[in-house]
Amino acid sequence: MRERNIAVKFLRVPSVEEQEIEIVERKGLGHPDSLCDGIAEAVSRALCEEYKKKCGAILHHNTDKVQIVAGRSNPEFGGGEILSPIYVLLGGRATREFNGNEIAVDKIAIRAAREYLKNVRNLDVNNDVVVESRLGKGSSDLIEVFKRKKEVPMANDTSFGVAHAPLSETERTVLEVENRTMQYFRFREKAVGEDMKVMALRVKDKITLTVGDAFVSRHLASREEYEEVKRRLSEFLSEVAAENTSRNVEVLVNRADTEESAYITVTGTSAEMGDDGAAGRGNRCNGLITPNRPMSMEGASGKNPVNHTGKLYNLVAMKIAEEIAEKLSVKEVYVKILSEIGRRIDDPKIAIIEMLPESEASPNMESEARRIASEWLENIQEISEMVISGKLRTF
Amino acid sequence: MRERNIAVKFLRVPSVEEQEIEIVERKGLGHPDSLCDGIAEAVSRALCEEYKKKCGAILHHNTDKVQIVAGRSNPEFGGGEILSPIYVLLGGRATREFNGNEIAVDKIAIRAAREYLKNVRNLDVNNDVVVESRLGKGSSDLIEVFKRKKEVPMANDTSFGVAHAPLSETERTVLEVENRTMQYFRFREKAVGEDMKVMALRVKDKITLTVGDAFVSRHLASREEYEEVKRRLSEFLSEVAAENTSRNVEVLVNRADTEESAYITVTGTSAEMGDDGAAGRGNRCNGLITPNRPMSMEGASGKNPVNHTGKLYNLVAMKIAEEIAEKLSVKEVYVKILSEIGRRIDDPKIAIIEMLPESEASPNMESEARRIASEWLENIQEISEMVISGKLRTF
Amino acid sequence: MRERNIAVKFLRVPSVEEQEIEIVERKGLGHPDSLCDGIAEAVSRALCEEYKKKCGAILHHNTDKVQIVAGRSNPEFGGGEILSPIYVLLGGRATREFNGNEIAVDKIAIRAAREYLKNVRNLDVNNDVVVESRLGKGSSDLIEVFKRKKEVPMANDTSFGVAHAPLSETERTVLEVENRTMQYFRFREKAVGEDMKVMALRVKDKITLTVGDAFVSRHLASREEYEEVKRRLSEFLSEVAAENTSRNVEVLVNRADTEESAYITVTGTSAEMGDDGAAGRGNRCNGLITPNRPMSMEGASGKNPVNHTGKLYNLVAMKIAEEIAEKLSVKEVYVKILSEIGRRIDDPKIAIIEMLPESEASPNMESEARRIASEWLENIQEISEMVISGKLRTF
Amino acid sequence: MRERNIAVKFLRVPSVEEQEIEIVERKGLGHPDSLCDGIAEAVSRALCEEYKKKCGAILHHNTDKVQIVAGRSNPEFGGGEILSPIYVLLGGRATREFNGNEIAVDKIAIRAAREYLKNVRNLDVNNDVVVESRLGKGSSDLIEVFKRKKEVPMANDTSFGVAHAPLSETERTVLEVENRTMQYFRFREKAVGEDMKVMALRVKDKITLTVGDAFVSRHLASREEYEEVKRRLSEFLSEVAAENTSRNVEVLVNRADTEESAYITVTGTSAEMGDDGAAGRGNRCNGLITPNRPMSMEGASGKNPVNHTGKLYNLVAMKIAEEIAEKLSVKEVYVKILSEIGRRIDDPKIAIIEMLPESEASPNMESEARRIASEWLENIQEISEMVISGKLRTF
Repeated sequence: MRERNIAVKFLRVPSVEEQEIEIVERKGLGHPDSLCDGIAEAVSRALCEEYKKKCGAILHHNTDKVQIVAGRSNPEFGGGEILSPIYVLLGGRATREFNGNEIAVDKIAIRAAREYLKNVRNLDVNNDVVVESRLGKGSSDLIEVFKRKKEVPMANDTSFGVAHAPLSETERTVLEVENRTMQYFRFREKAVGEDMKVMALRVKDKITLTVGDAFVSRHLASREEYEEVKRRLSEFLSEVAAENTSRNVEVLVNRADTEESAYITVTGTSAEMGDDGAAGRGNRCNGLITPNRPMSMEGASGKNPVNHTGKLYNLVAMKIAEEIAEKLSVKEVYVKILSEIGRRIDDPKIAIIEMLPESEASPNMESEARRIASEWLENIQEISEMVISGKLRTF
Repeated sequence: MRERNIAVKFLRVPSVEEQEIEIVERKGLGHPDSLCDGIAEAVSRALCEEYKKKCGAILHHNTDKVQIVAGRSNPEFGGGEILSPIYVLLGGRATREFNGNEIAVDKIAIRAAREYLKNVRNLDVNNDVVVESRLGKGSSDLIEVFKRKKEVPMANDTSFGVAHAPLSETERTVLEVENRTMQYFRFREKAVGEDMKVMALRVKDKITLTVGDAFVSRHLASREEYEEVKRRLSEFLSEVAAENTSRNVEVLVNRADTEESAYITVTGTSAEMGDDGAAGRGNRCNGLITPNRPMSMEGASGKNPVNHTGKLYNLVAMKIAEEIAEKLSVKEVYVKILSEIGRRIDDPKIAIIEMLPESEASPNMESEARRIASEWLENIQEISEMVISGKLRTF
Repeated sequence: MRERNIAVKFLRVPSVEEQEIEIVERKGLGHPDSLCDGIAEAVSRALCEEYKKKCGAILHHNTDKVQIVAGRSNPEFGGGEILSPIYVLLGGRATREFNGNEIAVDKIAIRAAREYLKNVRNLDVNNDVVVESRLGKGSSDLIEVFKRKKEVPMANDTSFGVAHAPLSETERTVLEVENRTMQYFRFREKAVGEDMKVMALRVKDKITLTVGDAFVSRHLASREEYEEVKRRLSEFLSEVAAENTSRNVEVLVNRADTEESAYITVTGTSAEMGDDGAAGRGNRCNGLITPNRPMSMEGASGKNPVNHTGKLYNLVAMKIAEEIAEKLSVKEVYVKILSEIGRRIDDPKIAIIEMLPESEASPNMESEARRIASEWLENIQEISEMVISGKLRTF
Repeated sequence: MRERNIAVKFLRVPSVEEQEIEIVERKGLGHPDSLCDGIAEAVSRALCEEYKKKCGAILHHNTDKVQIVAGRSNPEFGGGEILSPIYVLLGGRATREFNGNEIAVDKIAIRAAREYLKNVRNLDVNNDVVVESRLGKGSSDLIEVFKRKKEVPMANDTSFGVAHAPLSETERTVLEVENRTMQYFRFREKAVGEDMKVMALRVKDKITLTVGDAFVSRHLASREEYEEVKRRLSEFLSEVAAENTSRNVEVLVNRADTEESAYITVTGTSAEMGDDGAAGRGNRCNGLITPNRPMSMEGASGKNPVNHTGKLYNLVAMKIAEEIAEKLSVKEVYVKILSEIGRRIDDPKIAIIEMLPESEASPNMESEARRIASEWLENIQEISEMVISGKLRTF
């Protein structure tokens, strides 16, 4: 195995669980920013497939710039309608030609975006959304790089990835309440919309979960029914929370409601009216926003999974951190990896591993951590494969 | 003074200066993401002025969704030309009517964006850029909120702000090399473009500054001249670095250059070809991306400065941190503030102050920190004023 | 019945049938210009319905500015695909508010446009077309005018309409070959596309029909099959022509074909690649372009059917001409009607009737013609109704 | 000289001057449709220049699809402002590559459009207009055709051109009143806007000129001043009319004015608010819309001047008609020319010349007319040159 520049450190600081205050946020499936992330990633994956099919290799692309311009709507209990469609701009770039053949880049991108938006169940994608592709051409140099496909690709930029493991109780709770609502609860309660935002504040052992969810107006006959569903959602969230933490959890749903106004929408996402979205501004690769933790500003979703280290290093750092947390006796581990433009992606400029040992630090832990990191880097192209096949979340 | 929920903690951890490894990044003035941030903020400020003039108060708006779709260009030593214009999409929303009078929202937004883009000296804003406004209407409820203008506004959302002080040597260095290049050096060397990206890696006492700058092709007769300017820029950056740190600094400029290719552009920004940009994805309010520090994901630029706590709390946290770092005997201070939707903005749900004392923690330090925080919160509307008048950086 | 300014003239000129040379053209159902006309009219009709349902009256609108920007495609025998979608811009204006309620103008317009495009059978409207609405607001004055709904509306502009009857043999032939192909033949021969352009040149008694039709590539296994279908189409067109004229007719289909290239498309319309379209540039209200006849330049399709005299006067002139041609002993009749802005639409500034009598002109013919014209003008609001219910062709 | 298929006929019909009723219209310089025509033609000419400079020949393009989407404005006496910018969509197609070099098609097109719009003196082209280019690629076959540059090009389509000469008194009057207002009067009276529409109705010897002009609000202190300028404009138009006809002329300016409303604008064109425009829907190549005359529906403006017979044949027909009217003893002459796709443009399928002799028809007139037509066709590439150098009006 190749020699790699891997630094291993032991930290002597309070773990996040030991800190008195913790803030965690998640923008759920149908949040305008998450929709943009999801579209960006769906477009990249669709292009990867097409490139592999038509060209035998993934060609250069980065489809990470997606913007949603909100539409206009008129929700009301028992009904409502979309007045002006949601507009989605697909930015970024993608290779449009290969050996003289044109790739249907715009077509594939638009189709993938529209397909992805079907995640918002009550959104009529054909009539209520306009998707426009302004994907630029990839520059020719980069196409060159990609052609040497058998070899390990070179880093496209100087960027870094960071990750930590394991998730704290609060983090896990935030992640789970949204995931479970989308996986199960919204099918039981049709009025629950996909646009859910969860904000957790933990002060010592008290967690407050502030949850906003864009309810779907036509599945709610009245304000009374709205309040009932809100109550049932609140109970469900409390149950999920209880499975993830023994701490005291208070759940607050749609706190901004007043006597006159409730948070209802026609489609279940605030993108229908007033709330624009942009890719790369929401959750990090672990699905969370965690100001108590080191974070990367990289918008991983939509970046090409072949040589974009801003994407790959965030994902591989997460894998490394997770394996270390699982196998070694640590309370917490942080992994940071820095790329250098033009350098092989499996050989970063530096990889830093910071561990809070459960008890004692040991030379064995150090060498084990180094080995785990080095193996993941050795096989970084597997990360690419997992991204392409949709096995890795990026937001 | 109002009672506020302010928690003060003393940390016992190594300061960033004491940590062995540190990564810091800055996307400079002409980076596509920074251009979007700058446009977002310029549009908001222009609207604030218009609203004050026409309506006597700032009306609801958030113009924080800006996307740049790269153009196409053909740079070559001694010349080159733009082939396809840069496209700028202005998203977000703004109130369009007041007392039956229409506000020229699109017009003002486009003008402000175009004016801002003049920061890129070699960009012909009239011919090489297409700016489109798709700003939506503000919702009427929110207009209501804003009308009660004498009172302290209510928080528009549940969000948080974070900040730290003082900057580490590495952070200061990164900030300064870019600032000084833009303030002075680019006027001395016309070939230096506004799109500069600085990435610093500190390992113990060795700092590596990796700098990319989009040189301007028509001010460079040949590759030789390019190399000379690169060398002079490198020297200048080393000098600036030396003023900010006594650590050993290595400066690397345009590392991706090969024998065949150099980093030249027609305009001085990579937005002319291939590099899209988006607001809120680059620097945080202190001008930096600092994965070693707590960060907020909030895109502050373009948010309304009246009641958007995602913007205000990042800025007020910075002010509090700076004053504490200046007046109290701390190595580092972190400030985190959490809002609650519908609550007065001067009364956050919680404000957390974490200090690394120089030597001993003292009850006096705690009460002083609390007083400083409370005073800044009491006068948070001054932050709004400073934003409107352009006295506070947001990226 | 109201006194109207109607001038009746008898012409002493050779009829078109007697002239030696005649040129007639028709842009068929799927021609990009006709698609734009069809969309413009479909949008207007959809808005009329919505206005009637929501407001009890048709509100001001003119949706006559539609532009198609061609996509990109890759047709090949047995298959082919769309590479970039067709872009459709909906221009014009429409009233967006009524009694404080917002009308879903953009939504309705986009839906109507998409629905109309389904006329192109092989076009995947959901994936291969992007429709954007940039319909402006109607100006408030005009809204005022429309509110006085029981009364006869006032003309919105100074414009005119012209028509003639009966159609010449050549005109009828051109109209019929396209109509019949779309009504019957294309269902028998799947490879026949909707984009058919017919150009007829008659020199004395010899008619040459030059026909271009965008064949559908995936319904054609090979160039041989293409040639066979072309031959069968040619035969069909000859048969239809023979039903409409006893003159000698030569039919030429897809004359621009060369050995290397044939006129095939993925969808059956040239709008998929290269051919943009615009409303108002194709057929006049009788479905034809007839340089031997007086024509109006007015783009009738998409104009509001309530008070837009540019639309109504072309249609009512056609009705008048047809009735005169049917009931009176004339070889040809031409009707021209001029409006004056602000004047009741049932009382034009002048209506001119020019007749070529079969044999003798008579005072009785004159008074009958005047009566027919006056009655149609008296009941001009019926024309509006017929337009709204789709009973009158506008292109 | 090549044998050409030229048919010459003598007509025995009343000339237009002898007819009792005549309708003529002109959409002036700043009318939204005319602006689109002007932009379309300006873009084509700019591309011709670039192609010649960069490629040594004019490459394939047709830039005849231009649409203006109106802005929003707020005119008031003494001031007013633009609220939302005018949006201009440039459609059509143009060759983007030549010998591996990219042509700056979008850039050149946008610049030409913006430059042209400066004809509207009070329009701030930089701030009040958004111009977007969606010009498609030219198809490769056609590029092939154009490369054989020394030879006479082949017709790109089956289309026709028509023209007549001389202009009738009414036609000349309509043309002149607008031309002279733009050439002289608007510089004397700053409040006169470029958007002037002239509609003439002649009944026997009485001509009514209905003129609409978009006055410029900031050059008018009050309604009184507006009325004064209107009166002076009316006098000026009457004088110009008197120079062109001895018939009785009544001039009506801005007839739609009411006590409450006057026709004022911020910029001098109705495109600023409410009135969209499209290329090819306004004046024919002689600058007029003349329902009493044969007309072509071809939108000549923006078509390529090399082989687009829809453009060239309208222009060459006009030249032929003018020369015949000048040299031969005819009251009127009509010229119609029909192309055949793939046939040399100097050899149309048929050219038809119809003359109303002043007195007697003669074989000499016939041969002279044929000679004149044949010579113009022989030298049809001169027409191309004149178009490129801007010497021929197309609208």
